[in-house]
Amino acid sequence: MRNINIALLGFGTVGSGVYNAIKSNEETLKKELNANLIIKKILVSDKTKKRAEDVNPNIFTDNFTDIITDDIDLVVEVMGSMDFAKKCILTAFERGKHVISANKDLIATHGQELYKAAYENNCFFMYEASVCGGIPILRVINNHLFGEKIEKITGIMNGTTNYILSKMYQEGLEYKDVLSEAQRLGYAEADPTSDVEGYDSARKVAILSSLCFNTYVTFKDVYTEGITNITKQDISYAKKMGYNIKLLGVSKENDGKIEAYVYPAFIPNTCQISNVKDAYNAVYLKSNLLGESMYYAKGAGSLPTASAVLSDIVNIVKNMSLNLPVERLDRNFEKKEILSIDEIFTKYYLRISLKSNIDISSEILSIFENMGIGVVKNIKEDIKDNNTIIVITEKVKESKIKKCIESLKNLNKNLEIGNMIRIEDNI
Amino acid sequence: MRNINIALLGFGTVGSGVYNAIKSNEETLKKELNANLIIKKILVSDKTKKRAEDVNPNIFTDNFTDIITDDIDLVVEVMGSMDFAKKCILTAFERGKHVISANKDLIATHGQELYKAAYENNCFFMYEASVCGGIPILRVINNHLFGEKIEKITGIMNGTTNYILSKMYQEGLEYKDVLSEAQRLGYAEADPTSDVEGYDSARKVAILSSLCFNTYVTFKDVYTEGITNITKQDISYAKKMGYNIKLLGVSKENDGKIEAYVYPAFIPNTCQISNVKDAYNAVYLKSNLLGESMYYAKGAGSLPTASAVLSDIVNIVKNMSLNLPVERLDRNFEKKEILSIDEIFTKYYLRISLKSNIDISSEILSIFENMGIGVVKNIKEDIKDNNTIIVITEKVKESKIKKCIESLKNLNKNLEIGNMIRIEDNI
Repeated sequence: MRNINIALLGFGTVGSGVYNAIKSNEETLKKELNANLIIKKILVSDKTKKRAEDVNPNIFTDNFTDIITDDIDLVVEVMGSMDFAKKCILTAFERGKHVISANKDLIATHGQELYKAAYENNCFFMYEASVCGGIPILRVINNHLFGEKIEKITGIMNGTTNYILSKMYQEGLEYKDVLSEAQRLGYAEADPTSDVEGYDSARKVAILSSLCFNTYVTFKDVYTEGITNITKQDISYAKKMGYNIKLLGVSKENDGKIEAYVYPAFIPNTCQISNVKDAYNAVYLKSNLLGESMYYAKGAGSLPTASAVLSDIVNIVKNMSLNLPVERLDRNFEKKEILSIDEIFTKYYLRISLKSNIDISSEILSIFENMGIGVVKNIKEDIKDNNTIIVITEKVKESKIKKCIESLKNLNKNLEIGNMIRIEDNI
Repeated sequence: MRNINIALLGFGTVGSGVYNAIKSNEETLKKELNANLIIKKILVSDKTKKRAEDVNPNIFTDNFTDIITDDIDLVVEVMGSMDFAKKCILTAFERGKHVISANKDLIATHGQELYKAAYENNCFFMYEASVCGGIPILRVINNHLFGEKIEKITGIMNGTTNYILSKMYQEGLEYKDVLSEAQRLGYAEADPTSDVEGYDSARKVAILSSLCFNTYVTFKDVYTEGITNITKQDISYAKKMGYNIKLLGVSKENDGKIEAYVYPAFIPNTCQISNVKDAYNAVYLKSNLLGESMYYAKGAGSLPTASAVLSDIVNIVKNMSLNLPVERLDRNFEKKEILSIDEIFTKYYLRISLKSNIDISSEILSIFENMGIGVVKNIKEDIKDNNTIIVITEKVKESKIKKCIESLKNLNKNLEIGNMIRIEDNI
């Protein structure tokens, strides 16, 4: 029976999850792969630290050179840093070692360089865990939907923000209060910026759009807005109108042009992803044959992420046993234009606040009318707060709604735009 | 560029879908597979019939021998019959032709024989389309969850019954009325038996349990109940209690013993699959690493099913190009005991009808008490109909609830058991 020597780079939540996943499934894996998976080295910053897992202390090292010079077949990078992780992965490829990574930050920014290095060194490179943890979305796209044309991806790709928005929706709480609770419970980091500002989701959108639309979409190409401005007022209006508010990652291709963005949006309560609650993730796909499909699971956490890493390990070991040739991951990528957010067409929810109780509704609506922006609903009448006007527009180009907002602001110094939220009626 | 010659057996909804799927994705497929997919022969019963598709009439044949003697690499069986399909597939294997089948009836009954024949003749055999159409559930289990232990499968595996139950739930209609409408709209067959009695779902459960639990579960091993006894009264009580009624396919392994059944069940409105509406299917999995995951798409129809067939075609062509060895599909299967439905433990909903307005509630409840069956709720009080008593039990063994029902029937000749429905609180 063949030994497959594995090195883990990192032994935090995901690293220890991978360790436990391999140990707890040892017999099944041996039987199916006809190989022993041996974790031979673990790279950590402090090798003297006491660990919960019963790991042979001699396999810990704080020196990457120990790993690269050892007889390692497969490097599993679960550290999550940027520059150091990149250096380690590129070095691993140069030494002919296959690599698995869960590092979305790195792949969403330097994917192209990594695909190239993997191919040139004849190494497999897999990163299922980098997008929505346990959801096998890369594998579904690569091995199942392959051959058909994907038209649109819409996803709830971040567990922390989904937990916060779900709580706000269910309990009518303000953002700040739920965030504090989430931090206390460990659902949000002490510095939640990457989650709540949408950066984490944007990295997943970049990786997914690249794969679905065969082009290079990087983190900086993805227009990103977070959830920090969503108030309980916005959620309550959404609820009244039969909507939920979710932080969406969206990407689609139209006439060879790519749209890719992350923003909070009104979505109808009747759509499948509206029911994705708490820390769960879901990816909703539209493709030309299958039509609509959805994939749902935990997007983070020790074992769900480890499950995706283990799946990559198994697939690489199978590829190795079968002597499969390494294919360049971006072999079919073409350069495509990425549309600015100003070019998109959608409906908008505008919450307009008046600092004092002045009646300028008709002036406000005139601005929409003069600009040719259809107003579907003006729900001033329904709401108790006399100083708030809610406007729901028809589909309009984003650049136009921004001009309209400028005109509204110039109308009266007592007028403020409380929030502008996009409406995704057609997930 | 290599030519891959394909024969379609059958040119109905699925067959023509496969034809169109290959044609409409020709360029993508050519580019990715470095091969031409050529549909060289199509087996039909009437080769003179006028077809909507613009197919070269010379490729139609009504004689299977034409196919088997031709230079065919890949046989796609989408006829759906039993004996003739089996004969064709076994003959194809003998001639060294790879086979894709969407035939759940055949695989759920004769799977073992087909796996054996495929392996012995060194042929690939794939059947993704046989379970829930476009949901890539077999591929997820084989290529992604592989290595981890699946604990439970719960699915809405039949679109017709889900359409009927959704309509009954949404519009408060009776089963018969919705069935007629579904037949008129083409969502239900003229003879709906296989769908509404749960046989179609049971075949999918058989195929999935075999794969998930590595054992032979055939159609006849799956306990099956359909939806024909569900009344609008049952649905209205379910609704009142925060439940939905869905036709579930369930399978799990406990201590090496397999449970596999199809029955209508109360499921909480808060669970993900409760929101799976209309003709959609969903499979909910619990596994030891990933935890809970769900896969959702159309389970039938021309293009969704064709999507799964096309995915199998692509995977087989890739395997062929890579000269991959054929593995026996049941190589890890072991004989496992399949539990009788009488052995399961669950909660029950009982609707008890009294033919006249007699008050025997206390006698009825005594029977439960004397048998040691805990009653969670007795909602006689809530309901207008004085002749109906609803009882919700605690978890109890099925054989015990059946004895209890016998005792109830013996209590009074005016008492009838309107319905007994299992409650799946823990999907």
